[in-house]
Amino acid sequence: MKAVDVIIKKRDGHALSRQEIDFFIQGYTRGNIPDYQAAAWAMAVLWRGMTRQETVDLTLSMAQSGATMDLHDVAAVVVDKHSTGGVGDKTTIVVAPLVAACGLPVGKMSGRGLGFSGGTLDKLEAIPGYDTALSVERFKAQLRQIGVVVSGQTCELAPADGKLYALRDVTGTVPSLPLIASSIMSKKIAAGADAIVLDVKVGRGAFMTTLDDATSLAQTMVDIGKGVGRRVSAVLSDMDQPLGRAVGNALEVVEALDTLRGRGPADLVEHCLVTGAEMLVLGGVAEDPASARRLLVDALQSGRALSKFNDWVVAQGGSLSALGDPPTMQAAPIIRTVGAPRSGFVASIDAMAVGLAAVELGAGRSQKGDKIDHAVGVVLEAKVGNEMRVGDALFSVHANGEAAFERARARLSAAYGWSDRRGPERTLVYGVLR
Amino acid sequence: MKAVDVIIKKRDGHALSRQEIDFFIQGYTRGNIPDYQAAAWAMAVLWRGMTRQETVDLTLSMAQSGATMDLHDVAAVVVDKHSTGGVGDKTTIVVAPLVAACGLPVGKMSGRGLGFSGGTLDKLEAIPGYDTALSVERFKAQLRQIGVVVSGQTCELAPADGKLYALRDVTGTVPSLPLIASSIMSKKIAAGADAIVLDVKVGRGAFMTTLDDATSLAQTMVDIGKGVGRRVSAVLSDMDQPLGRAVGNALEVVEALDTLRGRGPADLVEHCLVTGAEMLVLGGVAEDPASARRLLVDALQSGRALSKFNDWVVAQGGSLSALGDPPTMQAAPIIRTVGAPRSGFVASIDAMAVGLAAVELGAGRSQKGDKIDHAVGVVLEAKVGNEMRVGDALFSVHANGEAAFERARARLSAAYGWSDRRGPERTLVYGVLR
Repeated sequence: MKAVDVIIKKRDGHALSRQEIDFFIQGYTRGNIPDYQAAAWAMAVLWRGMTRQETVDLTLSMAQSGATMDLHDVAAVVVDKHSTGGVGDKTTIVVAPLVAACGLPVGKMSGRGLGFSGGTLDKLEAIPGYDTALSVERFKAQLRQIGVVVSGQTCELAPADGKLYALRDVTGTVPSLPLIASSIMSKKIAAGADAIVLDVKVGRGAFMTTLDDATSLAQTMVDIGKGVGRRVSAVLSDMDQPLGRAVGNALEVVEALDTLRGRGPADLVEHCLVTGAEMLVLGGVAEDPASARRLLVDALQSGRALSKFNDWVVAQGGSLSALGDPPTMQAAPIIRTVGAPRSGFVASIDAMAVGLAAVELGAGRSQKGDKIDHAVGVVLEAKVGNEMRVGDALFSVHANGEAAFERARARLSAAYGWSDRRGPERTLVYGVLR
Repeated sequence: MKAVDVIIKKRDGHALSRQEIDFFIQGYTRGNIPDYQAAAWAMAVLWRGMTRQETVDLTLSMAQSGATMDLHDVAAVVVDKHSTGGVGDKTTIVVAPLVAACGLPVGKMSGRGLGFSGGTLDKLEAIPGYDTALSVERFKAQLRQIGVVVSGQTCELAPADGKLYALRDVTGTVPSLPLIASSIMSKKIAAGADAIVLDVKVGRGAFMTTLDDATSLAQTMVDIGKGVGRRVSAVLSDMDQPLGRAVGNALEVVEALDTLRGRGPADLVEHCLVTGAEMLVLGGVAEDPASARRLLVDALQSGRALSKFNDWVVAQGGSLSALGDPPTMQAAPIIRTVGAPRSGFVASIDAMAVGLAAVELGAGRSQKGDKIDHAVGVVLEAKVGNEMRVGDALFSVHANGEAAFERARARLSAAYGWSDRRGPERTLVYGVLR
């Protein structure tokens, strides 16, 4: 088999066989097929698409390109959760201990933020002492003892995906549905998941800006799951405005903690209950989403979820002293609230603009390897649908300097859209694909 | 400017500006843009195509990526000729001295054969002593003194094209009209041509198998010529069956020599007159193709073309002793004629099959760098339209061994198509685009 013939076959719009895909992916991972052939192939895939079977084969080939995790000595059913990325998405920090408190172990490998989209590891590292670099042994031991662990990758999972993703990033071949879907799913499968709850974001602060595109991505990933014998459900949720109120690492940890203490923002709480319910159903702890939801609400109200959070943080080296009520985490030198410039209803908040404002404040990265400031960020004091009078608190900026504050204020002010009339109720969850 | 943004722009179907194309091509030539980005870009160009202006800009950028020739100290108007490649195409060997004998200097850089298609340099090297590696100085001196020179490239012309072509070959990005057209034209422009006669072949033994595709390629190259201020005409000619009767290096030189001696096969003679007439018109030696044709016929019949051929070969180190009448060039150990298996009319001769048979005999290359045997090849004793009786000479094979002869015989026998009735007259020249 020759790599150029595989490229030509895809270029001409034909479906590749499992053997052809595996030849190409394993050859690329081992360096027998050079970057330039993989780049031409990726562009041909972007152009011609892939059948469901091709996408399944690609996912499995990438999942099997390196080490794979097996957690069945620790948990009977391993349920993972993945968000396609958004602004203010601290769901994992709430849902992991919440679901674990219901008896379903959650062992999760997370990533870092890049661009407008934050990363769970960056957020958790705002907790003094929290260790994101665990060995496989420690990962498993904590999962067994506490029932919840969130770490960076313990070993190089799906190296084909890592290598291909880096190449796609510099060759204009990122926005291909089968390549995006197989990238996500291959890592989850390599990480040992039996079941995966996908949190597919849609809107201005998501990679998929339309419900159609997000649905296609969700359906492709559900199809892959079925094709490889994993249980998958995909929650389609709004990311037109940020989730919750806080955007920034320490600020988001505080909001997650508030949520576990029973006073989280309504949209975040609802989103965590929907996502967590899917996890409990897939994990066999509950029969259906409605009964799962009752278990979750009970774990929240009883304080068991908060208690599980504390155990988890301590097990991973984090200091609880900063996480009191109120928390006393690292604070930015400038914390200033900006008032509404007019009266009326908040009609929209551009999540992408808020995400970019947070990056510019230092909460995120423009490029890989950029240092981040855990203290800075934004708190949206008003969200879509709120009725405001001139001067009412609109948003707060946590900045590390005057210039940074001014830039963020300008950008955030422009991110708000206004209306004289009350708009329709915003949809938070568009649906669940199973 | 970033290379990935240029790729994305083309991927999304937009036209690139002259600046973007030049940034990409010069960056790639100098190694600032890596192969993998050029490969993704080439696949996007294959997918999305290029406007006429983009193709012109690409051609000029590649032409200017390295050294360029200027022959105006030697010739007032430099006319070049290029064939898109076929089987049995020895036109240059006839036309170069023929046109030069009419007073138009022909200084031509040719290439080698690859796959089913032969190369003029390989054919000329069948003449003992013929030197294809001339310096710029010697090239110019011979052009001034003799009026005709055919050599390999004297310096690296259009290095961007050389680099990009090698990449396209291994990334499935060869069959893109703007990339093919700009590749051909950039080398001709870098070689200093003021005017170019393109011999665009169409049929089973050509890169373009349909008249539509060949016409598109011809029109694209004529458009490029207009866009860069060169005079261009494109002859669309048949390559469904081989041109002339001989296929193989020494055999083709002998046939070219026969043609200059006034007894060439009718199709080859006609093709040389059409192509040569276009050169004389573009070079300003004749007013129109009809008067150009009269000049060419006179040069042939008077023996001036043959005399010019002799001067040229001697100037380039070739020995005339082997080129007598009959010629005594290196002969293959086995020369055997195969008879017609049936009576009837020859309805078709698959030029591709004949070309591949010649390669298999050793006359051509499967891969770059393969050695070739100048003596071996095929002579088609009957061509399309000939009426045959069983056992009449159909073709002769010049082979260097029994096994090679047998393979060639089988392949060539299968290459002939038969009919009980006389078919319509074959078209040799489909038209000329100017």
